[in-house]
Amino acid sequence: MTRLDRVVVIGTGLIGTSIALALRHEGVEVCLHDRDDASLRLAVALGAGIPLASSEHTGPADVAIIAVPPAVAPATLKSAQDEGVAEVYTDTASVKTHLVRRAAALGCDMTTFVPGHPMGGRERTGPAAAQADLFLGRPWALCPTPDSTPHSLAVVDELARRCGGRPIVMDAHDHDQAVALVSHLPHAISAAMSARLLGAGSHSLDLSGQGVRDVSRLAGGSPAMWTEILVQNAEPLASVFDAVIDDLHTLAQALRKVSAGDDPSADVVRDLLERGRAGRELIPGKHGGPATDYVVLPVVIPDEPGALARLFSAAQESNVNIEDVSLDHSPGLPVAVAHLSVHPDSLASLSEGLAKRGWMVHTPPSDR
Amino acid sequence: MTRLDRVVVIGTGLIGTSIALALRHEGVEVCLHDRDDASLRLAVALGAGIPLASSEHTGPADVAIIAVPPAVAPATLKSAQDEGVAEVYTDTASVKTHLVRRAAALGCDMTTFVPGHPMGGRERTGPAAAQADLFLGRPWALCPTPDSTPHSLAVVDELARRCGGRPIVMDAHDHDQAVALVSHLPHAISAAMSARLLGAGSHSLDLSGQGVRDVSRLAGGSPAMWTEILVQNAEPLASVFDAVIDDLHTLAQALRKVSAGDDPSADVVRDLLERGRAGRELIPGKHGGPATDYVVLPVVIPDEPGALARLFSAAQESNVNIEDVSLDHSPGLPVAVAHLSVHPDSLASLSEGLAKRGWMVHTPPSDR
Repeated sequence: MTRLDRVVVIGTGLIGTSIALALRHEGVEVCLHDRDDASLRLAVALGAGIPLASSEHTGPADVAIIAVPPAVAPATLKSAQDEGVAEVYTDTASVKTHLVRRAAALGCDMTTFVPGHPMGGRERTGPAAAQADLFLGRPWALCPTPDSTPHSLAVVDELARRCGGRPIVMDAHDHDQAVALVSHLPHAISAAMSARLLGAGSHSLDLSGQGVRDVSRLAGGSPAMWTEILVQNAEPLASVFDAVIDDLHTLAQALRKVSAGDDPSADVVRDLLERGRAGRELIPGKHGGPATDYVVLPVVIPDEPGALARLFSAAQESNVNIEDVSLDHSPGLPVAVAHLSVHPDSLASLSEGLAKRGWMVHTPPSDR
Repeated sequence: MTRLDRVVVIGTGLIGTSIALALRHEGVEVCLHDRDDASLRLAVALGAGIPLASSEHTGPADVAIIAVPPAVAPATLKSAQDEGVAEVYTDTASVKTHLVRRAAALGCDMTTFVPGHPMGGRERTGPAAAQADLFLGRPWALCPTPDSTPHSLAVVDELARRCGGRPIVMDAHDHDQAVALVSHLPHAISAAMSARLLGAGSHSLDLSGQGVRDVSRLAGGSPAMWTEILVQNAEPLASVFDAVIDDLHTLAQALRKVSAGDDPSADVVRDLLERGRAGRELIPGKHGGPATDYVVLPVVIPDEPGALARLFSAAQESNVNIEDVSLDHSPGLPVAVAHLSVHPDSLASLSEGLAKRGWMVHTPPSDR
């Protein structure tokens, strides 16, 4: 097993502090540094580690994580390497080719550097939002340069695993193409859709359902941070936008033709919707492997303290593991609906067990 | 109170059967009709009502709900009115101006007709997916024509309320503009985004996080059904697409300029993201009123039967109402994280109460 006794985290924002917390839970010794004293003090207070300046160690740490904003990451890496802070280095920026190019231009040692990208973002920033479990089960891209040594890669791979992440080794160029598709495009699309709501009457927004809420969620992220991310991945992203624009343009034209009486143009609309559904089905399930088809059992519950506890007690007596749960509240009504996700094999026993104990269980949908 | 003793539901798909089930729960007498015998029998078996053909009543019902696909709704309305099935009529189609125009052209009586749109869709279809609570707390648009009588409107308003819906009276044109923005645009945008995933390598999709899952969810809906919906609202929708295309085009151009060294173009990117965030903030909260800012408390739990029951029991002992809950599972790890949403006032007592009982509670984020 690769040794990981002591690490240095440079930059105690959300990502750096979450990594530090995860490693502390694992018993790893963590030294912290941030040029902002308040941020550093908060991270220390959260138990993320001790200040690097007050560490008694003089030799290099096993690995240093450069978790500063991408714009300053290459220079931060260079000075950390110049000071010999650690034997191996990684970073956490969401775009890799741009950063690698700038690091190389600054003369960084590329043999000890393994660019990384833990995918555990959230819509909040700063050390106070940090969680030791931020990376649990999440992909963590590792993009070794042509010069990164196997030892450097092994150390950073171990780092990702100790934080609970799922390391995926890939080329920096492939990584940037991938995040353009699965991260940056959804974000920009969410913003472009949400921007349309600014022109809506208030009555319009009264009709908002779960759909517009889902699609708009990402638009709530920090515009400053996301501008920096999108701009660093400008080229791959612009090409993806071109393709989306083409599709939407074709769609708008088809709708106008249908409106003018050309019924066959509806096939163009349907083609895009079919491709969208096919694309969505390629997304792997939450647990990494192929998406498991859980079935959902809706149960009506009183909207009061303790109702969920009683419901889950009843589920426990049926010895069924609830895989997921979501709640729908009813404004002005004293009931809510709990949607319980379970393995298809457990559905019958859960449904019967709950009904027997007096819960109002709905016939689960049998089609898709 | 407006009388609602007996109703006729024509069309026993998801929406019609759900309305029937909701009214049966309210003790209303429901007669069902569907030109597809299998669908009708299933709805009857689910307890949604009795077949219209076997009803002993001869006089008109209080209201008839035309819940057939929009393409055949006007003709269905006309023949129901010709037969004198009810005193008042409504429908459930997602687009209103197109339908009203066609109904008028067929010579339907517009005084007894109040077009309606219950917003409780789901990604499934057919009577088996029906739920009596499908409309609980959901908006239900009522779009009276200039000729609809006040009595007709009162009856359909009562119908919506008895189903648990939240009636919103609006002009048909305003309704169609509104759903173009809050329903049809999100759907099409979700499809256009998801269609891009077809070209992705499998490694790319390994990096999928919650963001792309949220934005792509709607794309999983039925392409056939959604083609019909989008096509019927073609004009308003095409204009909305034009505006989105403009924004995305400007964004792509700005990214290319930044890539070519023109740093100030990043402000164009940020402008769109700012507008997106502002638009998103206009969406009202789940409960109808302004969005309540719940705080989220993450708690680590063992991934085993009964864990949630014990957690909710502990929450109950703190007398805190859990407003929402979501679970994050960790592949390969024996733990999950439950994210409990509570009113900010309840956070401290919940957090302390759980910690005191031995649960691993994370410091909740204090910033946004």
